[in-house]
Amino acid sequence: MADTIRYDAADLRRYAERFLARFGVPADDARIVADVLISADERGIDSHGVTRLYTYYGRRLERNVTDPLSPTRVAKETPTTLLLDGGNGLGPAVAYRAMFRCIEKATETGLALVSVRNSNHFGIAGYYAMMALPHDMIGVSLTNSQPFVAPTYSRDGILGTNPIAVAVPAGKERPFVLDMATSIVSLGKIQVHSKAKEPIPLGWGIAKSGEQTENPDAVLDKGALQPLGGPDYLRGYKGYGLALLVDILTGVLSGAASGPGVGRPTDDGIANVGHFFLAVRVDAIRDVGLFQDGMDDLIRQMKDAAKVPGQDRVYIHGEKEFERAERSALEGVPVLRAAVEQLTAVGKDIGVPFDLTPAVRRGH
Amino acid sequence: MADTIRYDAADLRRYAERFLARFGVPADDARIVADVLISADERGIDSHGVTRLYTYYGRRLERNVTDPLSPTRVAKETPTTLLLDGGNGLGPAVAYRAMFRCIEKATETGLALVSVRNSNHFGIAGYYAMMALPHDMIGVSLTNSQPFVAPTYSRDGILGTNPIAVAVPAGKERPFVLDMATSIVSLGKIQVHSKAKEPIPLGWGIAKSGEQTENPDAVLDKGALQPLGGPDYLRGYKGYGLALLVDILTGVLSGAASGPGVGRPTDDGIANVGHFFLAVRVDAIRDVGLFQDGMDDLIRQMKDAAKVPGQDRVYIHGEKEFERAERSALEGVPVLRAAVEQLTAVGKDIGVPFDLTPAVRRGH
Repeated sequence: MADTIRYDAADLRRYAERFLARFGVPADDARIVADVLISADERGIDSHGVTRLYTYYGRRLERNVTDPLSPTRVAKETPTTLLLDGGNGLGPAVAYRAMFRCIEKATETGLALVSVRNSNHFGIAGYYAMMALPHDMIGVSLTNSQPFVAPTYSRDGILGTNPIAVAVPAGKERPFVLDMATSIVSLGKIQVHSKAKEPIPLGWGIAKSGEQTENPDAVLDKGALQPLGGPDYLRGYKGYGLALLVDILTGVLSGAASGPGVGRPTDDGIANVGHFFLAVRVDAIRDVGLFQDGMDDLIRQMKDAAKVPGQDRVYIHGEKEFERAERSALEGVPVLRAAVEQLTAVGKDIGVPFDLTPAVRRGH
Repeated sequence: MADTIRYDAADLRRYAERFLARFGVPADDARIVADVLISADERGIDSHGVTRLYTYYGRRLERNVTDPLSPTRVAKETPTTLLLDGGNGLGPAVAYRAMFRCIEKATETGLALVSVRNSNHFGIAGYYAMMALPHDMIGVSLTNSQPFVAPTYSRDGILGTNPIAVAVPAGKERPFVLDMATSIVSLGKIQVHSKAKEPIPLGWGIAKSGEQTENPDAVLDKGALQPLGGPDYLRGYKGYGLALLVDILTGVLSGAASGPGVGRPTDDGIANVGHFFLAVRVDAIRDVGLFQDGMDDLIRQMKDAAKVPGQDRVYIHGEKEFERAERSALEGVPVLRAAVEQLTAVGKDIGVPFDLTPAVRRGH
C-alpha cells in the first residue's frame, strides 16, 4: 500500500487550478487538467494523479515548452471525422476538447472518430473514454507515449506503453471501463521496486543486453519493458502488436510522432504525442434498454462464475476503480506523500503554497 | 512442423466449392467460404483452414443446422452503421457481405460500423479486416466464439478466444495485419500437445479445480484456457478485459449470444455468433501518401531495432503469414494430412471424392 494522505477533492481541485493559473493556463482548461489528474487519484491510479502536476505539466509550462493556451486547431474535418492539431498544448485540455467534439459528432452521425497530433501526455486514457457514458455511447481513447517497450525479439525500448481505454455503459451494473497499458507494467512500477530494493518478477523487463532480468535497476539502465504477454511462449508478440497498433492509430494516422520519436514529458523538447478517440451511439445499432440488459447479464455471468482456490471475487474492468472513487468521496482523495512533499516545495518556489488540510474522515 | 501435403490453390478452391454446393450452398457463397478457409492454409494458419471444411461447416449443413442460403437481412441501418441478421447462415458468407457493406458505407461516410448477430464461426478474423486494404482503409474485424477461456480468478471457461483483427495499409512495406486470439493459445494448441502426449507450458491453461497445470488433458477435461497475459503478476486481467470487450462489441451490441451462451460449431444447436466490423478511410483524416510513408518509417524502425541474443529478426504482424502465402503460391498450399484423410473419407460418403493430385513444386 502506497503512503498517502487524504484531502478533500474540492480543496485539491482548487489547488491544482491555482497552480496551473500561475503559469497562464485559462480557468476552463485548468479545471479540466485538475479534474483529469485528481480523477486518477480518486480512482486509486496514483501514478497518474497530482504527483504529475509539476513533473509532467508545471515543469514544462515553467520552461515554456508546453503552450499554456492549448491552441487547438481543426486541421481537417468531415461529418464523421476530425483531425485536430493540439498546438503543443496541455494533453488533458486538448484531449478533453477532442473527445467532446467526438461525442458531438457521434450524436449527429452515430459514429465519429477524432485524431489528434501535436499534443502532450494526457493523463489516464480512461477519463476520455468515460466521457461517452452519460450519452449512452461507447467511448474509445488511445494515446502513444514516450518509448520504453521493446518489440518482441528486440532489446530496444522503442514503443510507448500505449494504453487502450474503452468505456461501455451498462444498466443496473456499473459500466465496463477497460484502461490498460499494452506493456505488462508501467515504468513507474519498476521504479517503485528499484526504490524499495526489491527484485521484479521475471518477465516484466529486460536489461540492455536483451536478457530477462529480476533486477529493476538493470531495466532502468537502458533496458526495456516487455509487452503484454511477456515471453514468447506466453505470446508477448500480441502485446507488441497492440502497442504497435495504438502507435499507428495515434501517431501515424494523425501525423504526430510515433515509435522512438515520441518525446518524454520530463524532457524539454516538443513531444508531439498523438491521440485517437472514437464514439459510437449505442442506439444507432440497438435499443439502449436491450443493450443495457445484455451488459448486465454478461457482467453478472462473469461475477457469478466459480472462483479459483484462494479467490472469492471475479472483477469487471473498472469495478475496483469505481469502489475506490466511492471511498474517496467519503474519506477524501488519497495523494502520495511524495507528491505532497514535492508540491509543498515547488508551491513555495512559485508562490502557490500547498496549504491544504488533510480530510476529516466522515463517520469517524 | 505439422505434417502437411501441398495442393494447387485453384484445385483446392474448386474442391471446396463442389463440397459446399453438394449441401445447397449457392456458387457465390461457396466461393467465399472456400476462399476464407484456403486463405488460412495459404497463410500457414492450418488450424483454421480446410481442416474445418467438414467439422465446422459441412457437418452442420448435413444436419440442417446452418442455413446453406445464408439469408442475411438488414435489421437496422443508418448512413454510418448497419445491424445485420446473419440468418444462421455460413459465418464466412455472412461476414464477407457485412464487411463488403461496411467498406461501401465507409466509402460514402469516411467511417462505418457493421454489427452482425445470428451468424456462425467465420474462420480467420484477419480475412475481413484485410478486405479494407485495397481501398486504402483501416479494417477491424472481431467475433465472439464458443466459451473456453476463464476470466481472471475464475475457473469457468465462459469466454471465447474472441479474436481481434486489424489491418492497416502501408506504402512500400507490407500491410500491418494483427490477427490475435485474446487467449494465450487456442484450444487446438492444447489438443496438439494432448495428442503428442507432451506437457504444456505452465500458464496456458487450468484444470477444472482452477489450478494451473502442465497437463493438456486436465485442461481438456472441463478446465479452461487462460487469457493473454496469463497469471496475475503478468497481468492476465488485461487479456480477460480484451476478451470481454470483444464479447461486448460482437455479442451484446448486436444482440447475438455472448459469454457462455455462444454455441459450439461442433454441436448441433444454433450458435448465434456475433461479429463486429469497422472500416476507416485513411484519407478522411490524412493524405494517403503521407500516411503510407509514416507506416513505412514506423515498420522499418521496428525491423531495424537491435535484437536480443539468439534472434536475428523483428517481425511485423502479418509478415510471417505474407511470406508463407508467397511460398504457397509457388509450391502449393499446405493442407494438414489429417484434414486430407478426413476429406477423403467424408468426400466418399457424400459423393464429392477428394481426388486432388499433390502440387508439383515449381523450380524443383
